[in-house]
Amino acid sequence: MNKYWSETIKGIAPYVPGEQPRAGRLVKLNTNENPYPPSPEVLEAMKAAVTDKLRLYPDPNCSRLRETASRHYGVPAEQIFAGNGSDEILAFCFKAFFDPGDTILFPDITYNFYEVYGELFGVSYRTVPLTESFEVPIEGFFTDNDGVILANPNAPTGKTISLEDIEFLIKRNRQAVVIVDEAYVDFGGESSIGLIPKYDNLLVIRTFSKSRSLAGLRIGLALGQRNLIEALIRVRDCINCFTVDWIAQAGAIASLEDTKTFTHYIGRIAATRSRMTEHLRESGFHVIDSSANFLMMSHPVIRAKALYEALRERNIFVRFFPKPRIDNYLRVTIGTDEEMDIFYDALMDIVMATNRLLPESEQTPNPGD
Amino acid sequence: MNKYWSETIKGIAPYVPGEQPRAGRLVKLNTNENPYPPSPEVLEAMKAAVTDKLRLYPDPNCSRLRETASRHYGVPAEQIFAGNGSDEILAFCFKAFFDPGDTILFPDITYNFYEVYGELFGVSYRTVPLTESFEVPIEGFFTDNDGVILANPNAPTGKTISLEDIEFLIKRNRQAVVIVDEAYVDFGGESSIGLIPKYDNLLVIRTFSKSRSLAGLRIGLALGQRNLIEALIRVRDCINCFTVDWIAQAGAIASLEDTKTFTHYIGRIAATRSRMTEHLRESGFHVIDSSANFLMMSHPVIRAKALYEALRERNIFVRFFPKPRIDNYLRVTIGTDEEMDIFYDALMDIVMATNRLLPESEQTPNPGD
Repeated sequence: MNKYWSETIKGIAPYVPGEQPRAGRLVKLNTNENPYPPSPEVLEAMKAAVTDKLRLYPDPNCSRLRETASRHYGVPAEQIFAGNGSDEILAFCFKAFFDPGDTILFPDITYNFYEVYGELFGVSYRTVPLTESFEVPIEGFFTDNDGVILANPNAPTGKTISLEDIEFLIKRNRQAVVIVDEAYVDFGGESSIGLIPKYDNLLVIRTFSKSRSLAGLRIGLALGQRNLIEALIRVRDCINCFTVDWIAQAGAIASLEDTKTFTHYIGRIAATRSRMTEHLRESGFHVIDSSANFLMMSHPVIRAKALYEALRERNIFVRFFPKPRIDNYLRVTIGTDEEMDIFYDALMDIVMATNRLLPESEQTPNPGD
Repeated sequence: MNKYWSETIKGIAPYVPGEQPRAGRLVKLNTNENPYPPSPEVLEAMKAAVTDKLRLYPDPNCSRLRETASRHYGVPAEQIFAGNGSDEILAFCFKAFFDPGDTILFPDITYNFYEVYGELFGVSYRTVPLTESFEVPIEGFFTDNDGVILANPNAPTGKTISLEDIEFLIKRNRQAVVIVDEAYVDFGGESSIGLIPKYDNLLVIRTFSKSRSLAGLRIGLALGQRNLIEALIRVRDCINCFTVDWIAQAGAIASLEDTKTFTHYIGRIAATRSRMTEHLRESGFHVIDSSANFLMMSHPVIRAKALYEALRERNIFVRFFPKPRIDNYLRVTIGTDEEMDIFYDALMDIVMATNRLLPESEQTPNPGD
């Protein structure tokens, strides 16, 4: 079947994103999408970009977008790179900064895609174990390396790494690039963007798919000093010079300009996250403090896989990772309050139904007890 | 400056696309864009796709687009892959089908990006010289190889390869993939898509950037048997699962459904091409018979580089490749009749002005002589 495949591709296990079910009425809390729509101004800007101009190639350098991002983040435009989603930019980083045989470091529990990039591009990696309570032990990264990647806040735990720890690492790691993937930082983390003027080995990655409600548009940014940005440009120009289409550029610009809607929805998600954390804990769940738009949770008795499957039967999609150390956790995106109530009620139903089947000594308190 | 760069990136010369000048009034005949707009139905479909749904990730498999393409091309949907422009798909091919150390073949004069992909992914390549008259000598490819890439029609010559020759090669090359890049085929070439059911080593690449007036939207397709398509899916899912955004999927579907506008504009471009070829030849230019939306031309006396620069001073952008064998040619995109008249008049002006500076023996006939 695969006699024409490359050796790399024959052996590789690709990244598996959360399901994108197409049909019917369901509660989709499995891919950390934003439950709130993009701002109307963003939609207007995109519609306005649907013109005859689409016959022309887009601006490969996304100049207007980078100028807008420059004002927004307080970083010069030439220190900003735009791509077709942050995953694409992360993949470009593996060609830009690492060679086959290099060894890069990232936590044992983090965004699964990092190891897939390593496999694809023949870059070795060593994982640094998180602590028992899923903290990133920053000294664990003070070893020989050709690069470090950290998600901050980390996924799927939702835990932040302090800016002090990040800076400590960057300082100790001047021989190689430190990539900080801030996909979820707008929901409560501390950004490392302020460190860019001080360190030419820091690259910060951002996405518009989470806090900016634009997963369907595909926009990511990288911010760092010019030496790093130029390497990304060079990789892009060896793959596809025009990665970001006209409409996506227009939408991204409008998104950065509309701080009000953005702040409003971020606030709502944070409020829902607090409320839900509290309720789940009251009901006996272990819930990790999250700075992201998802919660990582486990139940003292019922296995995460069973909960995942029972929720799925009720058309509620959450994420379960069958991986060491986290295979008894669910990762649940923060939806609207209504969605979270449906999720919570279903979860309580499942817990009660399971309780009935257990010996009394193993039962957990029913909600309301 | 580049101490953090990978070795691959330090040494590579990226692809250089034609300029995308942003300012003012100019005649842009340098990147083979379509001078006619996308059909109004395509624009309407895109506007209709600008909705709150953009908060969700796009369908990674582009199912509706592939179903529409299936009806359009008469190939099963599972034999179709969609990407963020055909360049991205070509890059994916290099990871999907070739390993470092493999040797692939392509003509010495063809789309420059093929050698860039080879450099980036460490795949060796051997070029097969075109004949004196820029024909692809198909027997030249009957040698050991791990893959062949042909642009048909070829770029920047605009010459077609016959379907017979393509099939002959595919049959002789069953040990490896033959990739046929049909970026320009709608303008007058013969497509190899009809051969797909017979050969599992044929992959055909299409773009929406040329004949479909959607360069600014970024859509490409690959068509081939399932074994090849699955390898491309696997590469994609190791880089960026969601390469084609919602709006691009909607626009591409509408484009495939509107055959009428498409056929109309293709006809106009072909008519302009014939007329311009004739005029230029009457004025002493050597013009290659083109099946694409551009003309490759040279002047018996004035060097292409001088013409290129003189045109540029008049805000007329064409393409000049400073490469062996073609460094005395211009590649000129077929624009509207009006644009081509401006181009032609400017060219005649330049020829006459140059004539005045030449000894009589070297002068070319003035237009109208």
